[in-house]
Amino acid sequence: MGETDQNLNGSQYFEGVEKLLEIWFTRTDGKTKNCDLRSIPRNKWENLLQIVHCEVISFSSNEQVDAYVLSESSMFVSKNRFILKTCGTTTPLECLEPLLVLVKQHAGYNAYEDVFYSRKNFKRPDLQKSPHRSFDHEVELLNSIFKDGQSYCLGDEDSECWYLYTLHPNIVPSSDLTRSDQTLEILMSDLDPKVMSIFTKAKSSSAAEATKKSGIDKLIPSMRIDDFLFDPCGYSMNGINKAGYYMTIHITPEPDFSYVSFESNIPQSSYKDVISRVIETFKPGKFVVTVFANQASPAASSAHEMEKLSRFGPWVQGDIQFCRLNNYDLTYTFYSKFPS
Amino acid sequence: MGETDQNLNGSQYFEGVEKLLEIWFTRTDGKTKNCDLRSIPRNKWENLLQIVHCEVISFSSNEQVDAYVLSESSMFVSKNRFILKTCGTTTPLECLEPLLVLVKQHAGYNAYEDVFYSRKNFKRPDLQKSPHRSFDHEVELLNSIFKDGQSYCLGDEDSECWYLYTLHPNIVPSSDLTRSDQTLEILMSDLDPKVMSIFTKAKSSSAAEATKKSGIDKLIPSMRIDDFLFDPCGYSMNGINKAGYYMTIHITPEPDFSYVSFESNIPQSSYKDVISRVIETFKPGKFVVTVFANQASPAASSAHEMEKLSRFGPWVQGDIQFCRLNNYDLTYTFYSKFPS
Repeated sequence: MGETDQNLNGSQYFEGVEKLLEIWFTRTDGKTKNCDLRSIPRNKWENLLQIVHCEVISFSSNEQVDAYVLSESSMFVSKNRFILKTCGTTTPLECLEPLLVLVKQHAGYNAYEDVFYSRKNFKRPDLQKSPHRSFDHEVELLNSIFKDGQSYCLGDEDSECWYLYTLHPNIVPSSDLTRSDQTLEILMSDLDPKVMSIFTKAKSSSAAEATKKSGIDKLIPSMRIDDFLFDPCGYSMNGINKAGYYMTIHITPEPDFSYVSFESNIPQSSYKDVISRVIETFKPGKFVVTVFANQASPAASSAHEMEKLSRFGPWVQGDIQFCRLNNYDLTYTFYSKFPS
Repeated sequence: MGETDQNLNGSQYFEGVEKLLEIWFTRTDGKTKNCDLRSIPRNKWENLLQIVHCEVISFSSNEQVDAYVLSESSMFVSKNRFILKTCGTTTPLECLEPLLVLVKQHAGYNAYEDVFYSRKNFKRPDLQKSPHRSFDHEVELLNSIFKDGQSYCLGDEDSECWYLYTLHPNIVPSSDLTRSDQTLEILMSDLDPKVMSIFTKAKSSSAAEATKKSGIDKLIPSMRIDDFLFDPCGYSMNGINKAGYYMTIHITPEPDFSYVSFESNIPQSSYKDVISRVIETFKPGKFVVTVFANQASPAASSAHEMEKLSRFGPWVQGDIQFCRLNNYDLTYTFYSKFPS
């Protein structure tokens, strides 16, 4: 994202690292046929996003999913899944209570099937707004709303790590026990300045030009792309396809704090090729890969795959951690360039 | 351990959960033939343990290892490996600097090959002495002495979890690159009161009687046992065998905060049977299993084994996490009794 909103020793700092909230809704009586998160009116979403300190700047949709490009990252709304991914100094957890009211009033759900809140460690936690200055505070807020969530820190707590809060209440019936679900995230830092320069108004006259020049359009074919180039720099895109899968990329190109995130829920039995294409496109100095996959997912064995991917060309695997959650397996891996 | 040293709502509280320090020493020039930690005089160890707030209460040894039962848990000293495991409100990290001086002066080592500091979450962190009230403070101290350590939290940060600080400096030559090493820990809470009553002076007239009555002597055959029964309750034992392997068990039997720890470095391709024997002996409500194994160890595939052990009779696997460290693989698993 291109907007800089903090002062760091006289120069502008922007936290590219996103806070990612994903909630699956259901009903305690299992009767979800007529429930739909997309019944929540647009102006209600806009009011909600004010609380988060961001706004809608572009919109695309198909039969499966509504995709919003935000001033700080993205929001995806489908029948029973809500995804809010926001960077900078946004406050997504502040919108939880009003969100739950909206969901009951307009969408007909009355329970959570799965809740995930995750983020990489911030470069500058001190610049965040409360409760986002520490994961402990975030968990405190989450636990005041959801009961019995679990919180994890994967990776080296003292340098590169990734936090997760998750909740899977066993008391509610699953709206679709056999649904296959998976999410791949690639969180990249210290990126190649030449690649990053594409995502500036100085080098690209439009978002479409940046998308094409960088090769983003070739990362996952068949995605309909809604992209945005910020002034003077920064880039966001959402891609959705007819099967209801999404991808989203957000780019903070400034050399002092460059950061790129890639996320998608496309089902694949191996993510090796997608990861290769993404890192060869953006050329990070280091990156974190997280893979969530449930038992019904083609990616269910991704943990064992990641274990074997000890390097991608010049990028060497450091930490690898595997975590079995209630109905998802999670793999966290950290790679960095081999010191040359 | 039987000593109670804190006041909790009028009744005595004792923190059974241990702080575990394990350091492997080497020399930067690789010349370790004449180095030996057992050259450090006994009175020097005793002075060192004063800093930790504990003392030696029993001693056994063989050609491979010196084993000390302490007023709060145990210490094992072999040629190049130091293990200090202490419970209660001891302060083992306070002895690090003087330890390093002793090691240089008397044992001839000048570098670390591997450093591990680990512990389960305390039940009452507020009763600990600085820097043990939080893992962050412990890491701060460790990083002021060792450089570039990594710190992890495995398990649910908000309920049952286990912390690890580890360091494997790549700059020093390994004294024995092909050495096989492994450690199994089973950290048990909410134990069967009937079993726990064995470890009281009221029910057992001697440590030997408690060892036999409980079946501790049958957990790992071939171990020479040095056991101690505290007054009025509490139990500690060290076992060592001729091959240099050890086991150690520490028991806090009080119903309000019962806790038992089991630890051993015996090499096995599967720990399933040992774990079964231990939990059937002590009957915990819940327990954490950690397994460290390096590539040369027969236990190298223990991570994949633990993944498959989804239950031990009534004990059901909750969290499982796997973490690949520099030269060790680590598996963390949490089990609790199936709600009946």
